[in-house]
Amino acid sequence: MTSASKKLLSHKQGVLLRKDSRPVIPHFFEGPEKLLEIIFRSNTPNSSHDTPYLGLRIIPRSVWEDVLKLVKCEVLSVIKNDYMDAYMLSESSLFVFPTKILLKTCGTTTLLHALQRILDVAYEYCGLIECNNVFYSRKNFMKPQKQIYPHTSFPDESVVLDKYFDGAAYTLGRLNDGDHWNLYIYENANINLECVPTDTTLEILMHDLHPDAASQFYRDDDFISSRHCSKSVGIMDLMPGATVDDLVFDPCGYSANGILDESYFTIHVTPQTECSYASFETNIVLNDYTDLINKVLKVFRPGRFTLTFFTNDYMQNSCETPGPISPMPVENERFVGYQKKNKIIYEFETYQLYFGYYSKIPN
Amino acid sequence: MTSASKKLLSHKQGVLLRKDSRPVIPHFFEGPEKLLEIIFRSNTPNSSHDTPYLGLRIIPRSVWEDVLKLVKCEVLSVIKNDYMDAYMLSESSLFVFPTKILLKTCGTTTLLHALQRILDVAYEYCGLIECNNVFYSRKNFMKPQKQIYPHTSFPDESVVLDKYFDGAAYTLGRLNDGDHWNLYIYENANINLECVPTDTTLEILMHDLHPDAASQFYRDDDFISSRHCSKSVGIMDLMPGATVDDLVFDPCGYSANGILDESYFTIHVTPQTECSYASFETNIVLNDYTDLINKVLKVFRPGRFTLTFFTNDYMQNSCETPGPISPMPVENERFVGYQKKNKIIYEFETYQLYFGYYSKIPN
Repeated sequence: MTSASKKLLSHKQGVLLRKDSRPVIPHFFEGPEKLLEIIFRSNTPNSSHDTPYLGLRIIPRSVWEDVLKLVKCEVLSVIKNDYMDAYMLSESSLFVFPTKILLKTCGTTTLLHALQRILDVAYEYCGLIECNNVFYSRKNFMKPQKQIYPHTSFPDESVVLDKYFDGAAYTLGRLNDGDHWNLYIYENANINLECVPTDTTLEILMHDLHPDAASQFYRDDDFISSRHCSKSVGIMDLMPGATVDDLVFDPCGYSANGILDESYFTIHVTPQTECSYASFETNIVLNDYTDLINKVLKVFRPGRFTLTFFTNDYMQNSCETPGPISPMPVENERFVGYQKKNKIIYEFETYQLYFGYYSKIPN
Repeated sequence: MTSASKKLLSHKQGVLLRKDSRPVIPHFFEGPEKLLEIIFRSNTPNSSHDTPYLGLRIIPRSVWEDVLKLVKCEVLSVIKNDYMDAYMLSESSLFVFPTKILLKTCGTTTLLHALQRILDVAYEYCGLIECNNVFYSRKNFMKPQKQIYPHTSFPDESVVLDKYFDGAAYTLGRLNDGDHWNLYIYENANINLECVPTDTTLEILMHDLHPDAASQFYRDDDFISSRHCSKSVGIMDLMPGATVDDLVFDPCGYSANGILDESYFTIHVTPQTECSYASFETNIVLNDYTDLINKVLKVFRPGRFTLTFFTNDYMQNSCETPGPISPMPVENERFVGYQKKNKIIYEFETYQLYFGYYSKIPN
């Protein structure tokens, strides 16, 4: 580990240093992330690609570091393959594809403070100006009053997004005393579905991790290495063959980015008992997600979780073949030990969304 | 028309009297209704019915009149058949079945002020105490600031409902600058689905009525009678054979209750240009609702409408026949001249809900 990343380790989770300079485990950390995904319309015809089109990937790390200062995040490390750059941040992750960026940040980061600058940078470096799709989403915060404007409320966040996009704001799930999920979605009305690649995102947002599962993500006396942790808890088995960038923070917390060809996954864990939370996200395209989801649940053993599944593949198929539409891969799945409390399906212009809320079946 | 109902005509829509005592057409009226449906658990075994079980229908009109004072509504008239009593109110409708009541009120009525009293009356007269299901729903108000607490906001309404029921609050549809629909739903966890009759509710909530359609609901010089209006606009064709109680208000506005065996419909119309709105609701069970919905749209010619379809039939079927579940009757329908902007499906414990938002295709 570099001394820079060592220093940054303790940025994670708002850690305080004790007098003996051992970090103190904070009681509360807001695990649930803010997630922004911007898909730009390519300004390069497909046919002219003699060399791979790098697009947003030509933007230097130093520029992203500047952008991320607005979010209150720092870059810890980066891994790359032919399709994307995956930055691990002091609080979460940034994925950069040729015409897509995906920024996911937790705690009291100020993601939307960087929106203008992200759009500016995309234009300055790549001439990208028009968006095909923009998604901003997050779970309800445990302590919204600790957030910084506009992240203090979803209506406030929507007002900011409305300045840039003609999008729609939705809240899915139970509002009174329950888990819900906020979504802002912009779909370009002039989109040509036939020219748009398949885009699929699965998120599993898990609360109340089993203490035995959560305890694996501490740098305590048993700690060997981040990679050892990733292997022993089962994270290395989630996308076999992936290049993985993983980090157990000091004194606790965990992040991992994994990339394999066009697929990625990203995991962020807040293990503290009073606010335990873990998120798993991937764009991998599978016919059946049951095994993957069960593997993730086995790692974290949450008391309750929200599953969101976004795809434009469904709508493309439904254009081609009229008639009864087959269900999305996750919508009728049952997960071992869990009961479905809510099932919601949203059909947008170009995307379909499944939202499921599950809780552990009492023993 | 009785002199009492004549007097009450001008209660509708908060009408003011001019000096020449002709009513002045108010500029604004909040058409979108508050809708409360309470389904009690029957305390009479089915087998003991030598005579029809009247249940809540034994509660005298005078008692409902007292209850409705809390809502700021008055009873104008009532029609009855073997299955229900349908009260027409100064602002909307009350349907009373043996173990179910359905109260729908518009304007600045205070529906939830009567909740305690409704539960008290059900217990005092019929010994009904446990609820199988409770639904409270309404569209977003055009002018929420004109409402009386707790109807000033959906969170406030939910707080009141939470005092009585362990229910869940949801908002469906677009939150920022758009039509959405609030729903509070309580489902008794101890319900025995096999003992519960099919319950289906279709609502069509229509805004921006075509001026030619809206102008039919004024007591102007062309006015002949309420029944003549119901016939000429096509309302008498919606449920052929139904007994209909209909009223064109002075100077404008319209309400109708229709009953046919176990089926009812209810219609309420606010025709004023600046806030035009009409609602249609029915519990009729059909395999295909396309014709009915197209007939309703032809009467009112709205610029945009929300369609909600609630059923427990679907869940009952899905218990019996595992495997792919057929779509609800309305979810894949297209309506002539309209485009679907939003399609949302919610699956609750015992009910499934379809929410569709449609707008007129521009010429």
